[in-house]
Amino acid sequence: MGNTIDRILNPRRLAVIGASNDPLKRGYRAIKTLLADRYRGEILPINPRAPEILGLRSYSTIEAAPGEIDLAIVCTPAAAAPEVIEGCGRKGVLGALLLAGGFSEASEAGRVLEERTLEVARRYGVRLIGPNTNGLFSARLDCNAIAWFDIPRGPLALLANSANVILSIVVEAQHHGYFGLSTILSVGNQTDIQFHEYLDAFAADPGTGVVVCYVEGFKNAPAFLAAARRITPEKPIVMFLSGRSAEGKRAARSHSGSLAGDYAVGSGTLVQAGVTLVTEAQQLFPVAEALSLFPPMRGKRVAVLSEGGGVITIAAEALAARGMELATLDSRTQARIHAIVPAASAISNPVDAGGGTDPRATYYGSISRAILEDPNIDALLLVGFFGGYGRRYGDEEAAVEKQVAVELGELMRAHGKPVMVQSHYADYRTEALDILRKGGVPFQRHIEIAVHCLAAAAQYHASRRRIVASCATHPAALPAVREIVARARAAGRSALLETEARATLVAAGVPMPANLLLRSPEDAARAAQLFGGQPIALKVVSKDVLHKSEAGAVRLGVRGETAIADGVRAIHDSVLAHVPGALIEGVLATPMAPRGVELIVGVTRDPQFGPVVMFGLGGIFVEAIRDVVFRSVPIALEDAHEMVGGIAFKALLDGVRALPAVDRDAIALLLVKVSALAAAHPEIAEIDLNPVIAHAGGYTVADARAILAAQ
Amino acid sequence: MGNTIDRILNPRRLAVIGASNDPLKRGYRAIKTLLADRYRGEILPINPRAPEILGLRSYSTIEAAPGEIDLAIVCTPAAAAPEVIEGCGRKGVLGALLLAGGFSEASEAGRVLEERTLEVARRYGVRLIGPNTNGLFSARLDCNAIAWFDIPRGPLALLANSANVILSIVVEAQHHGYFGLSTILSVGNQTDIQFHEYLDAFAADPGTGVVVCYVEGFKNAPAFLAAARRITPEKPIVMFLSGRSAEGKRAARSHSGSLAGDYAVGSGTLVQAGVTLVTEAQQLFPVAEALSLFPPMRGKRVAVLSEGGGVITIAAEALAARGMELATLDSRTQARIHAIVPAASAISNPVDAGGGTDPRATYYGSISRAILEDPNIDALLLVGFFGGYGRRYGDEEAAVEKQVAVELGELMRAHGKPVMVQSHYADYRTEALDILRKGGVPFQRHIEIAVHCLAAAAQYHASRRRIVASCATHPAALPAVREIVARARAAGRSALLETEARATLVAAGVPMPANLLLRSPEDAARAAQLFGGQPIALKVVSKDVLHKSEAGAVRLGVRGETAIADGVRAIHDSVLAHVPGALIEGVLATPMAPRGVELIVGVTRDPQFGPVVMFGLGGIFVEAIRDVVFRSVPIALEDAHEMVGGIAFKALLDGVRALPAVDRDAIALLLVKVSALAAAHPEIAEIDLNPVIAHAGGYTVADARAILAAQ
Repeated sequence: MGNTIDRILNPRRLAVIGASNDPLKRGYRAIKTLLADRYRGEILPINPRAPEILGLRSYSTIEAAPGEIDLAIVCTPAAAAPEVIEGCGRKGVLGALLLAGGFSEASEAGRVLEERTLEVARRYGVRLIGPNTNGLFSARLDCNAIAWFDIPRGPLALLANSANVILSIVVEAQHHGYFGLSTILSVGNQTDIQFHEYLDAFAADPGTGVVVCYVEGFKNAPAFLAAARRITPEKPIVMFLSGRSAEGKRAARSHSGSLAGDYAVGSGTLVQAGVTLVTEAQQLFPVAEALSLFPPMRGKRVAVLSEGGGVITIAAEALAARGMELATLDSRTQARIHAIVPAASAISNPVDAGGGTDPRATYYGSISRAILEDPNIDALLLVGFFGGYGRRYGDEEAAVEKQVAVELGELMRAHGKPVMVQSHYADYRTEALDILRKGGVPFQRHIEIAVHCLAAAAQYHASRRRIVASCATHPAALPAVREIVARARAAGRSALLETEARATLVAAGVPMPANLLLRSPEDAARAAQLFGGQPIALKVVSKDVLHKSEAGAVRLGVRGETAIADGVRAIHDSVLAHVPGALIEGVLATPMAPRGVELIVGVTRDPQFGPVVMFGLGGIFVEAIRDVVFRSVPIALEDAHEMVGGIAFKALLDGVRALPAVDRDAIALLLVKVSALAAAHPEIAEIDLNPVIAHAGGYTVADARAILAAQ
Repeated sequence: MGNTIDRILNPRRLAVIGASNDPLKRGYRAIKTLLADRYRGEILPINPRAPEILGLRSYSTIEAAPGEIDLAIVCTPAAAAPEVIEGCGRKGVLGALLLAGGFSEASEAGRVLEERTLEVARRYGVRLIGPNTNGLFSARLDCNAIAWFDIPRGPLALLANSANVILSIVVEAQHHGYFGLSTILSVGNQTDIQFHEYLDAFAADPGTGVVVCYVEGFKNAPAFLAAARRITPEKPIVMFLSGRSAEGKRAARSHSGSLAGDYAVGSGTLVQAGVTLVTEAQQLFPVAEALSLFPPMRGKRVAVLSEGGGVITIAAEALAARGMELATLDSRTQARIHAIVPAASAISNPVDAGGGTDPRATYYGSISRAILEDPNIDALLLVGFFGGYGRRYGDEEAAVEKQVAVELGELMRAHGKPVMVQSHYADYRTEALDILRKGGVPFQRHIEIAVHCLAAAAQYHASRRRIVASCATHPAALPAVREIVARARAAGRSALLETEARATLVAAGVPMPANLLLRSPEDAARAAQLFGGQPIALKVVSKDVLHKSEAGAVRLGVRGETAIADGVRAIHDSVLAHVPGALIEGVLATPMAPRGVELIVGVTRDPQFGPVVMFGLGGIFVEAIRDVVFRSVPIALEDAHEMVGGIAFKALLDGVRALPAVDRDAIALLLVKVSALAAAHPEIAEIDLNPVIAHAGGYTVADARAILAAQ
């Protein structure tokens, strides 16, 4: 399949259906651009009347054209699509690119037309790109079917829900001059071929080194996640995913009709699959360039080198904001720097080699060497006016600077550590910067963007290592859980009772506190015996009580037989007063949870991304803050640790005031077990453990709910 | 004073001390740049030996030079400074610019030298710029004493702790081509003239329209705040303040020796004074440019206009992230847009006038007019390829586009609403963009930066309105509070007892819950009578007990005479067991606070910014999240409302789960009262109301502490 799509995207012979000699028509411009870009395949214009178009022999129908055809570029109006695809099918064309709009994005009639077209395509095995697309560009055979000129070539494959965003990046590449495109796909309505299939084709394309995606909505998010997970260990995927805000969702819907999903779910599962997400469109191109140039970044420890202050402060702030580390240089490295520039203002990191007003581009080479040899450092960031020495200080300094530019590229490769340059002179593309970039070192005008590139590299390579090392095996279903679910369904319930939810967790290997279901006040003696003098919590177990606290169905800190019996009675009375006729299974007695940090662990089935496990901070306020992360199930232990370390206020897990630090290993294991349960049991739609009280000795699941999938 | 500094910054006659004929020396380059920039004043080289320097008559000493001298540019080494300033003093020079480093930033000996120099300067009334500065540029008389070439002229005054940051912005201005500088000041060690005095001079300078500051640390933050408050209603101040992270603080310290203060305090008080803070250096120049061009922005409601989707989604996400509003266009406006482009993909806001592939620059003019006439809209953002029509579609479309560019400037002025353009073609500076910018409409390459400019404008103009409308009168001291403090001091205490802190708040007009100090268990009857059956809290009042909970000195939910008496006894016993010999004033009885949102209100004396009032979320976790805002005291009611609406998780104030919405007016009034208390009573160093339980009916101050200032 990948092979078919590769042939469609890089066609050796293509037909232009609706080819025209009228320069205002798309069927003219398509051929014009193909010729202008010196397409290295064969063009077969299809036109029922004209015998020749733009100097090429034309055919009346596609079936009349000779030989195999990989791609048909369809320039005819929407209404003709089913018939055109029928012709393609009979001819055995591999794929068709439907340029016209007026399908499902436009009207109900268009939707029907799109379905009919797809049905014809499926019948004959013709794969469709679009409809409602601006076209395709692929560099391998110089197939420019997107009708824009001067597209720079390079390792970047671009996949987008928006032609406007594609244009923005193409213009950026044109002005940039160093980094260009291998493939461009304006995916259109994704009626047939969808994001993930293009991804697989890019994975196999030797001309593609990095993929940039602009996504307003997925048609098949789980397939995308699976494809991304296959590809990201080899090639980075840099993505802007819309839907962070209600406003963004609304705009995306008005544009592409896409229903953006929950951003927290989307971003969590995409990061899990190794995707590099950016939240600003301006980061797409710089990050893609940097990831395609950098050697693997081993950690987050960045050294900053400058001549002069101010910029080192800005760099330090930006690195801290992005979660990078300014590791202190080894004392031997510091001694070496001191020997190179005795008057240096700072040598521990950031390094400020300034102190005077004399030009000293030469220092950058020797100091960079010392820094890159330091085992405490994973990457080097130069900030300030490197790239401008020649311009500022004349020819002699320019020669030195150019030599240093060569050295920086060599050093990056020799040490296998990213080198990034921020230069005040970036917009001037000085000779030194040109040499630098040709040597593989990217440069940026602004510190924040440069830092973002390094942070993205650190995150990408950490994801790569995680994906390669970890393997979440698909867990087997548990007979005990099947039985619990079957019994609940037999009883006509769509949710498990708390006792059943707890039993399910126990079956999944989750340690649960001792508990006892008291069927009547008379069971108080057994409870008192089991729990001794420790205070316990009592709460009703009843399918008819949804809000236990409001129904007076919870008693906390109860101690001793008499109090327990009183509590059970009071709960019965209160429940029956609130919910007359409620069916009460009993009252659940559990020990009071020890003090700790309130967490939430849950499972939901996301309408786009499928089953996901959630982790976050609990408690009434923090829940409103919604500091939660998601991953697709099942997860590996490494994923679980990333989840625990991935919440915004993770500092709260390290001990707050009187509370001890949370046992992260235990929580990670809980996440793995709950995710395995969700993966193996699609019949359980939702799980909600809230709160999970985490403490130094582990955790206590204080409440457990589970909702069954609709049958 | 402002006038003197204005003369120093724009000298009509200046001396160059240490003038030289050696091209490698600063005393040569200083004169060279002044001549190259056609300085319109008179240059008096001072050199004991050379009779002529660079063709100018030279004098052996400054005293030998004729006439009045406004500024001496001192190029001699640090060690000579006291003697040189002595000469300046005798001559009656107004100001001296000390270029040399080697003062307090370098060593203890340097610090002593700097103090001696300052002492001489003070004796003679010579004002000092620097030392350790890269110099000064001022456009009025083309006084370029910073030794860089080709500085573009414009309304931007630049004030910075870092020559490197200044250079970055100068290079940005050079490349930008439309926006330049009125004054540049590398402030150096700020031994004498400090940030705020320069600010006052900029305020009076007709050539300055906007100030950009890069600040690593203030020498006199309260003076800066006062100056900023005077200036920002007239001229925006755009600032990057370092110190957001420990890493940034460390880097700033290694660079300028600055001790960055608490960023939350600094940013809160600066915003209060109308300063526009940016957190990325890349935003400084674009925001300054936009603020200097835009008419006042009346609110946060932005309309987005594009031809084509994708970019409208990105714009919507960016606007939401910056707290801007995408207000729906009036139905009449929508009808007008529909009439202009019947096929438009979206007309409510964002507006997507696309739908086909034809060029249509002309639509931008008429649609922009309709949008700007809409009363629901405060500003217009164009995104996409405006500026590139001519380049893409040829001369005919170029002519239309240029006409629209003219119109957009006219529309902005006619409607007094900011218009901002993001163009994929910004880097190409097309003719249309050139016309646009000359007509006063700024353009940017990236959506996020364009949005940031609009957000900064909305915030700046809101601050202006607040500062002009509000006036926090300095409150008078309260006799009752003075008495409480005097009594506490007489008793040898450095903190108030809780009863005293409560009485202080009552004196300041803060409604406090009823309370009773129980001196012995026998007082329980009075308490039972006062509080009736409601549950009360008991806690010890003792200067010797710092951690009440740990000392077992708090009992909650106590009800009825017997329980109260038992509680008082238990507290006595427990306190004496924990703190043998503790002096117990009694046990304070207060009603249990109703359920509500836990808040913190406090006062501290910041070492840099002076007395500040703090507001934030309380509770054990949320405190660790540290969601707090600060303002200088006293505050106006408008400041208090900005504080309440300024915390990150303000959504928690609008009602969470079972909790009702907080009464924001009541909380704002509490902040005003506490801030007045702090302003009028410097003898109270700190106040800590934690928690304040906010509820629909107001609030309950559940605990109050106050620490006295050292005497």
